[in-house]
Formats: sequence, C-alpha cells, structure tokens
Amino acid sequence: MSSLQNDRFLRALLREPVDVTPVWMMRQAGRYLPEYRATREKAGDFLSLCKNPELACEVTLQPLERFPLDAAILFSDILTVPDAMGLGLYFEEGEGPRFERPVRDMAAIEALPVPDPEEELRYVMDAVRTIRAALNGRVPLIGFSGSPWTLATYMVEGGSTKNFALAKGMMFDRPEQMHALLDKLAQAVTLYLNAQIAAGAQAVMIFDTWGGTLTPDDYREFSLAYMQRIVEGLTREAEGRKVPVILFTKGGGQWLETMADTGCDALGLDWTTDIGDARQRVGHKVALQGNMDPCTLYASPKAIRRSVAKILESYGKGSGHVFNLGHGIHPTIDPEHAAAMIEAVHELSKPYHA
Amino acid sequence: MSSLQNDRFLRALLREPVDVTPVWMMRQAGRYLPEYRATREKAGDFLSLCKNPELACEVTLQPLERFPLDAAILFSDILTVPDAMGLGLYFEEGEGPRFERPVRDMAAIEALPVPDPEEELRYVMDAVRTIRAALNGRVPLIGFSGSPWTLATYMVEGGSTKNFALAKGMMFDRPEQMHALLDKLAQAVTLYLNAQIAAGAQAVMIFDTWGGTLTPDDYREFSLAYMQRIVEGLTREAEGRKVPVILFTKGGGQWLETMADTGCDALGLDWTTDIGDARQRVGHKVALQGNMDPCTLYASPKAIRRSVAKILESYGKGSGHVFNLGHGIHPTIDPEHAAAMIEAVHELSKPYHA
Repeated sequence: MSSLQNDRFLRALLREPVDVTPVWMMRQAGRYLPEYRATREKAGDFLSLCKNPELACEVTLQPLERFPLDAAILFSDILTVPDAMGLGLYFEEGEGPRFERPVRDMAAIEALPVPDPEEELRYVMDAVRTIRAALNGRVPLIGFSGSPWTLATYMVEGGSTKNFALAKGMMFDRPEQMHALLDKLAQAVTLYLNAQIAAGAQAVMIFDTWGGTLTPDDYREFSLAYMQRIVEGLTREAEGRKVPVILFTKGGGQWLETMADTGCDALGLDWTTDIGDARQRVGHKVALQGNMDPCTLYASPKAIRRSVAKILESYGKGSGHVFNLGHGIHPTIDPEHAAAMIEAVHELSKPYHA
Repeated sequence: MSSLQNDRFLRALLREPVDVTPVWMMRQAGRYLPEYRATREKAGDFLSLCKNPELACEVTLQPLERFPLDAAILFSDILTVPDAMGLGLYFEEGEGPRFERPVRDMAAIEALPVPDPEEELRYVMDAVRTIRAALNGRVPLIGFSGSPWTLATYMVEGGSTKNFALAKGMMFDRPEQMHALLDKLAQAVTLYLNAQIAAGAQAVMIFDTWGGTLTPDDYREFSLAYMQRIVEGLTREAEGRKVPVILFTKGGGQWLETMADTGCDALGLDWTTDIGDARQRVGHKVALQGNMDPCTLYASPKAIRRSVAKILESYGKGSGHVFNLGHGIHPTIDPEHAAAMIEAVHELSKPYHA
C-alpha cells in the first residue's frame, strides 16, 4: 500500500506534533451533499448503497473531493453487525431502521451467531479495501462499529426507540440476558473491527450513541465494560503504524475519566462539555475529538468561524485535538457552511502548533 | 387557607428535617392513568383540559387518590405562556405542539405582549385556586413554568424540533434577537410564577427541558442567565412560609455548580448523574430532586425497589432530597409500578432520617 501523504489525523490521535489541527466530520458522506443523494438514488436505497462496495467507496470519497478533510470514514451503518447476525435489517422510508426478528429472550440470544466478517460482512471488508485503494494514501481511512449497548438497544427494541422500554426492561429485570447479548456483541464487534483493520482501516471508532441514556452505574456495567473488552481485543498496529482507537459516548461528558481508563487513544466529545475542561481532566491520557455543536452550521460562515476559534482557543496549544462536530452533520446543512468550518480549522489552528 | 397536613416536600426542599424522604413524579397526572385518559376524553382534547380549571383540578388530584404522594403539581402545559403571547397554540394528534404564528424576526419579537397572568392566563390561576381549595391542606401544590430558552425554542421553531435549526440559527447568527426574546420571556415567566404563588402555589419549578442541548457557554448565556433573573424576581414567601424554587435542566449534570449559584433552593437531577456525587458538589447550597431513570418503571416491582434503595443510599443520611423520576413518567407505565416506587421510597428512607 502507498505511504500516507497526510497523516495529521493519526498523529493528533497519538498526541504527536502536527502542523495544523486535523478535521473531519461525522456523517461527512451524507445527505447534505447533492452528489451523495444522486449516488444513493442510483443504488436504490440506503442499505443497497451500504452493501455495494463500489458505490460505498464513491460516497466515502465525495466529501474529500469538495473539502480538504484530513480523514475519510468508511461509508456503512452500525446495524450491519446485527443484520449479519440474522436479524433482517430493513429501512422504511422516513421511519428509521427496523429488524424483522428482534431479540427478546435467552433462547434468541443463545441462537445468535457471531458473524465471520469475511463471510457475512464481506461487503464491508470489500468496501474498506476498495476505498483504501482509491484513497491511494491521500488521507487515512477510519473504520467503525456501534458499541455493544447501542447495538443491543436496536436488537431488543426491533428498531429505533424513544423510551428504551424493552431494552432497559431487559437490563433491569433480566440483567443476565442483557449481559449474554452484550457479551456476544463484544465478540462480534472485536472480530469486525479487527477485520476492518486487516482490510486497511488505519484508525477505528466505536460509536456509543445510546450509552448516555444510562445511569452512571448502568453505563459502566452495560456499556463501558464491553467497550473496554473490545479495546483490549483490538489489533493496535498495522502496516508498521499504530492503529488508534476512538471511543465516543454521546452524552458521556460526565464520564470522561472512566472512558479514558479503557486504554483507548482518544475520546469523542459532544458539545455539552468544554474541550478545555475535558483536556484538563483527561488530556494526559487521551487525545480529544470534537466538539462543535452541529447546529452551528445552520449559522453564517462568520458565526461558524467564531465558534471554531473559540473551540481551538479552549483546547489550547499543542497536539492531541482532532476537530469534528459533536454529532453527525445534519442533512439540511449547506455544504458551503461545512467548507467554512474546515477552512477555519486549518487556518486558525496554525498558531497553536507553532 | 387550611394548614398543611403533610409538609415533607417543602421541608426537604429547604433541607429541614423530615421523617421520610418525600416523593412525587413529574407528569404524575398523565396518560399512564386510565382515569386521566377518561377525563381527557371528557374534555375533548389536551388543550381544552388545560384550559378548564375544574377538569385540570380533577386530573391534578387523580394520582393523589391512588398513591401516598407528598406533593401535587398543577396540571398545565409549559406552552400556555407563548399561547397567551398570541402565538396560537394547537396540538395535532400524535404530532406534538404547534404554533400558528412562530416568532422569527425582531419585528415579531418586539410585537409580543407580556401577558397579564390574571387576564390571558386566568384559567391557570383559576386552576391553582381550585386545586388549592380541593387539596384542603393535604399536600403542597407545585406551580411551574418552562424556562425562557425552552419556550423560545418552540416559539422560533413553531413547535417541537429535533435539530433546533431555527432557534439555534437565531442564537448563533442574530444573538441580539434571541436575547430580546429571552428577555421578554423572563419578564413573562416571572409574572406568571408570581401570579401562581399569589393564587396558592407553595413551591415553583422551572423546567429547562432543552438547556442541555447547548454548549456550556451558550447554556450560561442563553438559558441559565434568564432563569437566574426569574429566581431573583420571584416572591419567596407566602402565607408565612418560604416558597422554594426548583431549577431543572435536563442534561445539565455537568453544570450543577453554576445552577446552584442562581439562588434557587433545589435542583432537579436527571438520572445520568449520581445523586451522591451531586450532593458532594452542591448539597451545601441546595436540595436535590430526583433521579430515577423513568425506564426503571418498565421493570418488575422488585427491580424498582432495588433502584430506589440504591438512590437513597447514594444520597445518604439527612434531609435535602425529594425523590422523583429523572424525567416525566412514560405513558405506557403500569400504575402499580409507580405505586411500588412510592411505597419503597417511604419505607426504605426511614433509616436515613432517624
């Protein structure tokens, strides 16, 4: 594989010196881009797009054609893993994800296979290989997975949920069932991420979208413990470089210390925590990724630039910061506003790395 | 007015000794109760129920007939204030609240009247008086309002929102407009809560449902500052007793110290903060109200009892704790599960007050 022309992202995650603060955006390959919507239409639907390595590669690269981003992220969905476990993922237009066969008792949990990533999830690995070849060393490629707790909520509920009635009902009433499910998911996710690394992912991120809906004790027991097990099981070096691991619990600002203790390299931050405070708390252990309010991109380029400046100032001098939004970019954002953010990060961060 | 037979709730909010930990539930008069659904059907719709003092009184008292709750809370809606400002509140079945005339520019903000609570909101004051008479000193009555920021999001968006595109767009791009709106709302809410107190509310709570969607700086500037102004403008004594003020920012666990500095008497806590940690941080200044995960009520009475025990133990000995859920009770909860929680609080808290 060709050598990396821009490794700012990987260096910042390892708190090694960089020239400017690297930047990428969660959901940077997404609906806010007209070219994404065109490819998605060509694919037919969202899931067909995920399952087609050529088209997944096409949309992964689209934001890099527009913006000087410092990383690419595999275009995929966190629910590919439960789908490969046989739950039957489908999307109803405007309704979010659904599973044909939710998992609600011990028999169903015990019957779940742990998928072989190069078999049932081969389309993902093929996408990783295709994207790596197409990137040709331009920027690093990020692989990712949902956290066990986050995946479990969808698997028990049978789709998205507002209240977590069934998933939390199982957790409170039949914790041994929830633990059996999370255990299996931790195995599956470890294999899945290691296969992505073997296929060419140069960093991996675990998205714990729903860990922040738990109490502190339940978070440690039902979400963090399984993410820690994954971190411990990951391949941490490939192609002669470290493969950094990023943990992101949305709404986890109160728990950064215990998250940093998992042995991960970096924490994703949403915008409800001041990044300077977070650095004081855990910056001696991990890098930080974030954390602009994604709604800032609804505002004018001038307001966006002000917000970028504030976050950079709060983080302060030195490496260890990957700029990002605190959540995925909203589908109705003007791409020019994303451009304004990215430009401001590179331009305004120079003095902090002098 | 008759003297209060059960004043545990008021005493706990002022950190005065109590025999057991008092308990009530956010949305205790609500859809999980079949008798509530019957009254609502009689009223026709939700808004007609809010605007009918006799029926609002009826549903306010319903949970007290079932459970030994230590407080009643006025049945109403936070959007009565913007409705009284002329925005035209209506509810579409299953769609949440909507405004006919959203507020999106300075001209609209300047044209907003500050409602006279005994005129445009007289039906709320009549409900407070009717409920106080019907309670006849059984337990204290809580009045409430939405926070200025929370009300502003609905007023600018024209209803509920997932992304806060318009409200945050105004905040980032035209902060002077947002401040003008919040300033007017702070005036309106102060008058509204003082009128509730004059009509008989014995404690008041400010619901900042959407403050937790802000960055720490934006929270202080656009939400907390206006709640502080309200706290400073409230009547703090009536009928020879202190009228405690409770602030509740959902998702505000990282900001308890600055919230406690507003001069309020108590903070509402959601379940993402350990109540023992919160007590260590701010228990010398304020009482704490909360904080069971409302999803716990989906579990068995045994699991509910375990969770109650854990929260009581975490808070520890002494007064200053009002037990509650960390958010409103979900509409699909079995009332018997609420009963199990309330019984467990009274029974298991005795040793902590010995």
